[in-house]
Amino acid sequence: MIQLNHQTAPTQFIEANGIRFAYRRFGKTGGVPLVFNQHFRGTMDYWDPAVTDGLASNREVILFNNAGVSSSSGEVPASIQEMGANAIAFIKALGLTKVDVLGFSIGGMVAQEITAQATDLVRRLILVGTGPRGADMSTSRSAEIFAGAYDPPEHLWLAVHFSPSPSGRAAGFAFLKRKLLRKDRDPEVSEEAATAQREALTKYYAPAEGALNYLKEIRQPTLIVQGSNDVIVPTVNSYVLQQNLPNAELIVYPDANHGSFYQYPELFVSDADQFLSSALQDGANLRPSERLPFPSVVVSAAGT
Amino acid sequence: MIQLNHQTAPTQFIEANGIRFAYRRFGKTGGVPLVFNQHFRGTMDYWDPAVTDGLASNREVILFNNAGVSSSSGEVPASIQEMGANAIAFIKALGLTKVDVLGFSIGGMVAQEITAQATDLVRRLILVGTGPRGADMSTSRSAEIFAGAYDPPEHLWLAVHFSPSPSGRAAGFAFLKRKLLRKDRDPEVSEEAATAQREALTKYYAPAEGALNYLKEIRQPTLIVQGSNDVIVPTVNSYVLQQNLPNAELIVYPDANHGSFYQYPELFVSDADQFLSSALQDGANLRPSERLPFPSVVVSAAGT
Repeated sequence: MIQLNHQTAPTQFIEANGIRFAYRRFGKTGGVPLVFNQHFRGTMDYWDPAVTDGLASNREVILFNNAGVSSSSGEVPASIQEMGANAIAFIKALGLTKVDVLGFSIGGMVAQEITAQATDLVRRLILVGTGPRGADMSTSRSAEIFAGAYDPPEHLWLAVHFSPSPSGRAAGFAFLKRKLLRKDRDPEVSEEAATAQREALTKYYAPAEGALNYLKEIRQPTLIVQGSNDVIVPTVNSYVLQQNLPNAELIVYPDANHGSFYQYPELFVSDADQFLSSALQDGANLRPSERLPFPSVVVSAAGT
Repeated sequence: MIQLNHQTAPTQFIEANGIRFAYRRFGKTGGVPLVFNQHFRGTMDYWDPAVTDGLASNREVILFNNAGVSSSSGEVPASIQEMGANAIAFIKALGLTKVDVLGFSIGGMVAQEITAQATDLVRRLILVGTGPRGADMSTSRSAEIFAGAYDPPEHLWLAVHFSPSPSGRAAGFAFLKRKLLRKDRDPEVSEEAATAQREALTKYYAPAEGALNYLKEIRQPTLIVQGSNDVIVPTVNSYVLQQNLPNAELIVYPDANHGSFYQYPELFVSDADQFLSSALQDGANLRPSERLPFPSVVVSAAGT
């Protein structure tokens, strides 16, 4: 039997909430699957195969398009919260009762909402290049970068995801090559869908009294990954996430931008694997004081 | 032949700068040794054997007391800069021309000074629970914690190094047990030496225009490790270090304090091992633009 991978996993469909969700599923079965939540304007083809296939060696990975995005039906809702509710409906429709969730950028915001709304469904959380409700976007260059003209247009993603250093550029070109390997491709995100995503983001970023309070209720072990200089969702937001989530580890990679995990895919896969496989006590419903932190291993004296 | 370890490595002495430096050396020879720089009031016996022996599996580790500390002769100098110069003299006296440097707290400040003063001597740098020149100590509880009374006195180090959660306390007790295993022990740090260390720290923390400029010249691959809530050197200083060092990765562990690496020794050893062993291009003397960042590996498309 040939093992399915990022290039060969067929696009499947499942109905939930009146939406026909497109998804792909591959990797090692038998454990807790990892559900990927995509960034602004991204489809299932926008993930880095080095990351998805890398993580699929030790677990099943599930890619999907949320409502209104690319090959999924329905409309992009007006809030990140509703995107979270749609994602939960999709996961439950697959018959899954426990998943790990990875989210990148807007997908990281959706991942937080999934966890806040369906605590029992989520075992562990990975947040890449993202921020909390009310995120500080004052230094973001997102509007300018997405409004720019690129030749070829695909080079937009070099500006979004990679650092401008020579090795950042080299990593970016290698990523674009990997990204284009799949033949059977998703349709691009419509302008209408992108506009709706942008509106939901604007609402999400709005400053509000106590905006960060919800983070205290996300008790899942969380790995936050960020680049040293994220020009889309400024790096400081990952620090704020770490400081406000009860059980989160933060890793900031050097000389990296929004797509830090695509710049160092082997390192990221190793870090994420260690996090997802470590001997944590997964007490999502326990108060922090009742819960062993991440990781719960207390080693005894070396040599004894 | 029995391999020496944290418990059995004899204390040796070497002269440099008119100082008789006490040191211990053990682990796997043949590569670049890792030199440990200790925290305020600490001696060679204050390192966690789970960390030193853990790292010694893959490299030689060198512990030492800097000038005026414990079994080393001389006086604690009036500045961190001079402590760095003394450490350099010690390393060179051993005949070493290239080392990795780990520093914890005040030792992390000394490690930065070693690197700034002797760039060619240092390959890679690990900074734990520390901060830059002019560090923001506004939320530090250091003075209060070190002035406190503890029964037994050794429990001071629970307050300094570990989080107050049940598992933080448990990790702290396990650490204290490991720390006391060695029989042939260093004398404690004198009040006079501790006062001099405190004075050097006060000078180091003084705000100054351009205080962070020196960090741009530290181009060595650097791993910064910190706890989510360091009550001695506030966590934000590690974020500031990461943002100002040209080639630094930051890891912040959850539910952890000043001694985050003693709370998660297995995780730290794994992270530090990965960092020290990874395929970096160690171009300490190259301009950032000429240098491949950390790590230099650009993976090709998965499956090809």
